[in-house]
Amino acid sequence: MEPDSTFLLELADAADRETLPRFRAGGGVDNKLGAGAFDPVTEADRAAETAIRAHIAARFPDHAILGEEFGERPGNLRQWVIDPIDGTRAFITGLPVWGTLVGHYVEGRARLGLMSQPFTGERFYADGAGAFLKRGDGAPQQLATRKAERLAGATLFTTSPRLFSGDLLPRFEALEGAVRLSRYGTDCYAFAMLAAGHVDLVVESGLKPYDIAALIALIEQAGGVVTTISGDRPEQGGDIVAAATPELHAAACAILVG
Amino acid sequence: MEPDSTFLLELADAADRETLPRFRAGGGVDNKLGAGAFDPVTEADRAAETAIRAHIAARFPDHAILGEEFGERPGNLRQWVIDPIDGTRAFITGLPVWGTLVGHYVEGRARLGLMSQPFTGERFYADGAGAFLKRGDGAPQQLATRKAERLAGATLFTTSPRLFSGDLLPRFEALEGAVRLSRYGTDCYAFAMLAAGHVDLVVESGLKPYDIAALIALIEQAGGVVTTISGDRPEQGGDIVAAATPELHAAACAILVG
Repeated sequence: MEPDSTFLLELADAADRETLPRFRAGGGVDNKLGAGAFDPVTEADRAAETAIRAHIAARFPDHAILGEEFGERPGNLRQWVIDPIDGTRAFITGLPVWGTLVGHYVEGRARLGLMSQPFTGERFYADGAGAFLKRGDGAPQQLATRKAERLAGATLFTTSPRLFSGDLLPRFEALEGAVRLSRYGTDCYAFAMLAAGHVDLVVESGLKPYDIAALIALIEQAGGVVTTISGDRPEQGGDIVAAATPELHAAACAILVG
Repeated sequence: MEPDSTFLLELADAADRETLPRFRAGGGVDNKLGAGAFDPVTEADRAAETAIRAHIAARFPDHAILGEEFGERPGNLRQWVIDPIDGTRAFITGLPVWGTLVGHYVEGRARLGLMSQPFTGERFYADGAGAFLKRGDGAPQQLATRKAERLAGATLFTTSPRLFSGDLLPRFEALEGAVRLSRYGTDCYAFAMLAAGHVDLVVESGLKPYDIAALIALIEQAGGVVTTISGDRPEQGGDIVAAATPELHAAACAILVG
């Protein structure tokens, strides 16, 4: 059997049972990188990845798994890529814009994706037939990107302008100058809003595969475009540009590549 | 009769009926400042302020009102201060971190406050007896700030570092260097999370009275401190520092004043 939307929503259930009770509950924050940097990992992060991996291993024991917390499990050419809590800073400060991310690659190419935000009760997912938002017990609603083609009318998101360095910083600032509105601080939620037609551009620097894996299928199956800044496939992460339309994507990349 | 928590929640009901159905529905965005700048005002903004003003005028016809959209109505020494949608950029991009803000001043001093976020179903309010969060049909939960006293362990929020100019920018950057974590892009929601004990410091530049009015009572009645950077009362807005404790407030102001 192939993984389908029912299976993706089961993964969301498994993750939500671990994350939601710990959201805003305080609790242990470790520091992966030691005293010099801040990279919070909560109990929720580990427990959610453990639950997702167990659910995948039980149903698809031959599939490979890559997770932020527990690394790689070898397998066949089908791979699950997991970020149990994307937006840990949002999580530890009480903001409902983090998400559990699960992507599915077939021979290295994104085919399925899930972003679950249990506090708002939202599951954004792409199942191969399209991109959808299901909220609570409601019916799934099909998602489509906005038909934005010109930078002058576009909204642009990034987590923080401070994450851009070297040549990329002035080029990002030039892009900010060309759009209608830019905004900071949203991690995966901005990509979900792009798929849902509320945001036109998301640019992020230095993403890991698990930061973007789930979102590739979501954006592509909603009609958007997502690549590295240099136009390569985004499955392995890096500096990423996601856009509502091919026209907007080309216009943003032209500025960012310089 | 004095306004109480029941009345505040009625104002939230009146506002939510206008804002929530228009959230993520697309719809008209005007531009107050013309083509040169971007200051979105949705139908929801105007309709919510109209509904709040009507509800106040019916119950407290002698009270003064100041609203972002429709300006001042003269009255006695009791004044309601309204921002129907704080975080209009969040609203138009689909992010659930905007809020309807209503503050109540008695002789110029904040006594009551309400922040309503209808997509998450949250009402944060201060009624003179304390600060509370009521979610959906749940019981109100009393809020208290976190007992954070040292900058080195503190989380800091601001809407955007680009909003600081002149001497304030390097001083804000020095404060960012002194804290554990800084994050951007949340408007009123960051102040609500400070009252709820999830965030330790919020610094904002150039606030109008209606940007902060509702949040003063919320923060103070949760045990926090909020003033201008120079230590004056915050009711008239300006450059604002909100902190979880007096110690943290003093440490942040010492850096920001230079």
